Amino acid sequence: MKTFSTSELIDGLRSGDKRMLAKAITLVESKKPEHRDQAEEILKAIMPFTGNSIRIGITGVPGAGKSTFIENFGKFAIKAGKKVAVLAIDPSSSLNKGSILGDKTRMEELAREKNAFIRPSPTSGFLGGIANATFESMLLCEAAGYDYILIETVGVGQSEVLVSDITDVFLFLKIIGGGDELQGIKRGVMEMVDLIFINKVEKSNLQHAKNTKVELLRALHFMPEKEKNWKVPVLLGSALENVGLEEVYEKIQEFIALKTANFSFLATRKKQAEKRFEYWVKELILQKTKSRKDGETVYDLHKKKASELEVNPSSEAKLFVDQLLKN
Amino acid sequence: MKTFSTSELIDGLRSGDKRMLAKAITLVESKKPEHRDQAEEILKAIMPFTGNSIRIGITGVPGAGKSTFIENFGKFAIKAGKKVAVLAIDPSSSLNKGSILGDKTRMEELAREKNAFIRPSPTSGFLGGIANATFESMLLCEAAGYDYILIETVGVGQSEVLVSDITDVFLFLKIIGGGDELQGIKRGVMEMVDLIFINKVEKSNLQHAKNTKVELLRALHFMPEKEKNWKVPVLLGSALENVGLEEVYEKIQEFIALKTANFSFLATRKKQAEKRFEYWVKELILQKTKSRKDGETVYDLHKKKASELEVNPSSEAKLFVDQLLKN
Repeated sequence: MKTFSTSELIDGLRSGDKRMLAKAITLVESKKPEHRDQAEEILKAIMPFTGNSIRIGITGVPGAGKSTFIENFGKFAIKAGKKVAVLAIDPSSSLNKGSILGDKTRMEELAREKNAFIRPSPTSGFLGGIANATFESMLLCEAAGYDYILIETVGVGQSEVLVSDITDVFLFLKIIGGGDELQGIKRGVMEMVDLIFINKVEKSNLQHAKNTKVELLRALHFMPEKEKNWKVPVLLGSALENVGLEEVYEKIQEFIALKTANFSFLATRKKQAEKRFEYWVKELILQKTKSRKDGETVYDLHKKKASELEVNPSSEAKLFVDQLLKN
Repeated sequence: MKTFSTSELIDGLRSGDKRMLAKAITLVESKKPEHRDQAEEILKAIMPFTGNSIRIGITGVPGAGKSTFIENFGKFAIKAGKKVAVLAIDPSSSLNKGSILGDKTRMEELAREKNAFIRPSPTSGFLGGIANATFESMLLCEAAGYDYILIETVGVGQSEVLVSDITDVFLFLKIIGGGDELQGIKRGVMEMVDLIFINKVEKSNLQHAKNTKVELLRALHFMPEKEKNWKVPVLLGSALENVGLEEVYEKIQEFIALKTANFSFLATRKKQAEKRFEYWVKELILQKTKSRKDGETVYDLHKKKASELEVNPSSEAKLFVDQLLKN
């Protein structure tokens, strides 16, 4: 690809050039050291212009209608005068190369909007690294003036935790199906959500949807409060028919207003930042350690030994660390 | 304290000398390097004799009757021919020095039993370190022939996760109170439990207890299954009056039998061991890094900078790691 200077990229993305934003994101996602170095320079320069968006995580099982929701919700937000960026964290993409936002036919209408930017999910690396690329892409989008960052994830793996750790609002898309409505909701997800949208509701299944809502509200009642004084709303609608999206939009505003008044908006972001820092210090030290000669092989041997239950795991860890840091 | 040789301690605890077991645990809890070295030697020697107990985590809010439960459940297990050890993880003990098992008047009757061993919780260090001391104390108790290890924790902080990560069965003690029964149950705890015991049930509150049971069963119904084919039982009783303890005992047997038949008993322990290993590798490398000259101060400065949201947290982590590992 044609290379651009750091200042070309910064000026470009800051002035609203989507191609430059896309190129900067490619650098952020890259594993090549020279790309990473340029990415770091760009990130450093744009930091003063970040933090001004509402960061929204969106999850739901495949088939819940996430793309359609994002497309029409995004269009709604744009009509309300906002700029909307769409990113993704997809734990499956590194395995089967089938990125959740990779399908070019998806979100076509939103993609054509001047004030929208859509980025397929990064497709390689370990989940923590993918999530970090998404986090940094979000910073770039903020510097490019996007007001709403929608981060999509699929309801598998640990991705919800990662999305929840980089967003302000966590939205769960639910569809009604046969049988027990609450089976199949992933462990922990119900405790992370700030807002639930029951999608694909129409006349024929309205009563069913209302029952599901009652059941969800009861389930939520059993959960400890995530945000003080916030009862997680369960909204009904149809993203395809543009029904209920305005309500979602308003509830998000309301939630952000509450968090701001509570002082929990910034406090949560600060906590998220500390957590990221701690995570990456440990991760990077471990990566550096493993990257030494035979580092990874030796690590795996020790780990296997620990898993065989014949040694005390922390003693085995100490043995490994002592050996490696001796050199 | 009088010092004993490593072999004296090993032979002593293996032959059932509780004083030697206690001294070995003191070494395991110590932060002095020479104690730690001896602890490692002991742990290494006793590993072949570990793993044969049923490891039971017990949680509940202060006032749920944990001590009384442990005392009378312990006595019941002893009557059934078992040896019982009681340990604790107490996140509050490092703060206020008020250890949950530290009160000498508690569990007096159990303490007098030949086949019981009670150890107050370690009272200093960070929670991960405290949990590790408890884990290693458990190994020592297993080598000393204890069949049931009861690990108590209070329902605060992250201690439930830590207890759940070192045990086979997680038991939640609930008391019925006024009003909304399920408020105040901590985030995540309901998803960790294998067995619930509603304590302090008597004639006057029996109906209330039954209602609470229905509510708990409904809440559990909303949770994803933790162990395949295991519906978490909700039992009623009174630990003080020895009512319902036999049922708890039987349910634990049943649960362990299921996990064994499922092959999940050993599989879970192996996963726990890998997780401990990974945790400690990262933790120890970080500790070593911080223990260098100004290491901790520099770490804290970088972390603070990350929390101020003016830098990208992972860039800040990289800066810190690069600086430190350069030397």
